Amino acid sequence: MVTDPITSLTNSRIKTVIKLRKRRQRDATGTFIVEGYRELFRLLEAGRSTRTLFISPELFIGSNELDLVARCRKTGSEIIEVAAAPFRKASYRDRPEGLLAIADQFDTSLDQIPLRADPLVLVVESIEKPGNLGTMLRTAEAAGLSGMIVADPMTDPFNPNVVRASLGTLFAVPLAITDTASAIAHLRSAGVSIVATTPDASLAHHQADLTGPTAIVIGSEQYGLSADWLEGADTKVMIPMPGSVDSLNAAMAAGIVVFEAIRQRS
Amino acid sequence: MVTDPITSLTNSRIKTVIKLRKRRQRDATGTFIVEGYRELFRLLEAGRSTRTLFISPELFIGSNELDLVARCRKTGSEIIEVAAAPFRKASYRDRPEGLLAIADQFDTSLDQIPLRADPLVLVVESIEKPGNLGTMLRTAEAAGLSGMIVADPMTDPFNPNVVRASLGTLFAVPLAITDTASAIAHLRSAGVSIVATTPDASLAHHQADLTGPTAIVIGSEQYGLSADWLEGADTKVMIPMPGSVDSLNAAMAAGIVVFEAIRQRS
Repeated sequence: MVTDPITSLTNSRIKTVIKLRKRRQRDATGTFIVEGYRELFRLLEAGRSTRTLFISPELFIGSNELDLVARCRKTGSEIIEVAAAPFRKASYRDRPEGLLAIADQFDTSLDQIPLRADPLVLVVESIEKPGNLGTMLRTAEAAGLSGMIVADPMTDPFNPNVVRASLGTLFAVPLAITDTASAIAHLRSAGVSIVATTPDASLAHHQADLTGPTAIVIGSEQYGLSADWLEGADTKVMIPMPGSVDSLNAAMAAGIVVFEAIRQRS
Repeated sequence: MVTDPITSLTNSRIKTVIKLRKRRQRDATGTFIVEGYRELFRLLEAGRSTRTLFISPELFIGSNELDLVARCRKTGSEIIEVAAAPFRKASYRDRPEGLLAIADQFDTSLDQIPLRADPLVLVVESIEKPGNLGTMLRTAEAAGLSGMIVADPMTDPFNPNVVRASLGTLFAVPLAITDTASAIAHLRSAGVSIVATTPDASLAHHQADLTGPTAIVIGSEQYGLSADWLEGADTKVMIPMPGSVDSLNAAMAAGIVVFEAIRQRS
C-alpha cells in the first residue's frame, strides 16, 4: 500500500516517534526506536522485525538502504515515507541517515540467557550512563558471552542512546533485564559462580578462577555494587591499578575482567 | 584587584573563551580551556596553573570552590567574576559548575615521557573521538603508565571534550604529542619494544611478552594502525574475540592490552 509521504512537522506519526524518547512511553507501548542502517541491519540479522519503518530517501547516504527497506517490508513492517524536515525532527541524531523504525520490545526475562556448558555472563547493576551500557553490550558481543544481565537498571536498554552506543549489539547479545534478587537467585540455582568486582576486594581479578560457570558483576558508575551483590558473591575481585584507583570507568572495568576470563578460558 | 563582574553576554572576555573551542585558536594562542572543579583540581595538583579563572559563585554546587579559587589566585592567576547568564554562554557544559579557566598549553614533546626502568607506554594513532582519547588517558592514569604518546592526532588532547572525558587525568599522565615517525624513532633509540595491536595479527595479546620496556600501540577507530606502525613494530598482537570482531572500541582495546601488561608485570 502506498501512502503520501509525510511532509508536516506536526504529523501525529512523527509525534509518536518523539514520545518514544521517554522511558514511560516505551514501557506503556512495549515499543522502542531503532535508528540507523547498522542498527537496523543488526536487528534484522538477529531475527527481529520492525513494526513501522520511516524512510527519508533524500537522506540516504549509502546504496544498501533499499535492500533493508525491502527486508523490513517482507517481514510485514509498515513503511512510511517522510520528507527530510519532519524526518530530522523525529531523528535522534545530528546526521540522520533516513532510516528510523519503531520495533517491539523483546523478551528480556532471565530464561533468555543460556546457562549451559560453563556459561560466562556479565551482570551490570544500576548503570546510569547510556554510553556505558552500550559499550558493555559491545564488549559482551565481542567476547561472545552467554549473555548480559541488566540488574535494577537506572537507564533501560531500550533507551535510544543505548541502542546507538551499542551499535545494535543489543539485538545480538542474549539479554535479561531484572532485579538484583531475581538475578542472584537465578544464577545460584544454575550453579553459576558470582564474581563481584569491587575496589575493596583483596584478590586480583587475574588471581581468581574464572573458568567455570561464571557471572562477572559490575556496579554502578557512582556507587559501585550494592550490599546484596557483595554479600551474595562467591568471590570478590579488584582490578589492581598501579596508578589512581578512581580513573577506570565501569565499562572499561567490565571489559578488563571479561577479557581476563576469556584469556583463562583459551 | 577587584573588578566588576561581567554581566554582558557579548563581553569580549567571554568571546575569547568561546573562540578557544576551536583548535586553530588554541594553537594560535597556546592556551586551552579547563572547566569544572575536578578538572581544575587535577590541573593544580599536577603543579600547573591557570592564566585566567572565570568564576560564577551563584553556580557553585559544592563548598570547596573558594579554596580552589584561592589556590589559583596564589599562583598568580587572574580571577574574573561572571554573572550566571554570560558564564553559561562561555561554558561547554549542560550544567556549568561556575568554574572555568584559560590555561597555558604545556610541553608535550617526547622527552616528557620517562623511558627508564622497564617503561610501559601507550601509543595511540590518529584517534578521532574526544571521548576515546579521554578514556585512554584515564586508563593510562589508572594503570600508572610511564606515559601516553598521541601520534598524528585527529583530535588534539587540548580539545575541551578531551579534557572533560579525561576527567583531568590529562594533567597527571606524562603526555607527548608528535608524529608517527618521530615516535617510532624515539622508542627505538630507547630500546622500547613496539607492540602493535591489529586484528590481522596471529599472536594473542596475552601470548606476547609485555614485561620489558614496552610500547602498546593502538590505531584509529576507523582505519586501525598505519603501515608505518605495522612495519615498525617488533611484535603484532590481536585480542582474541570469541564473538564478533568489530565490536570492541579503540579505548576498550587499549585498556584490555594495557591491563594484560600490568598483570604480566605483577
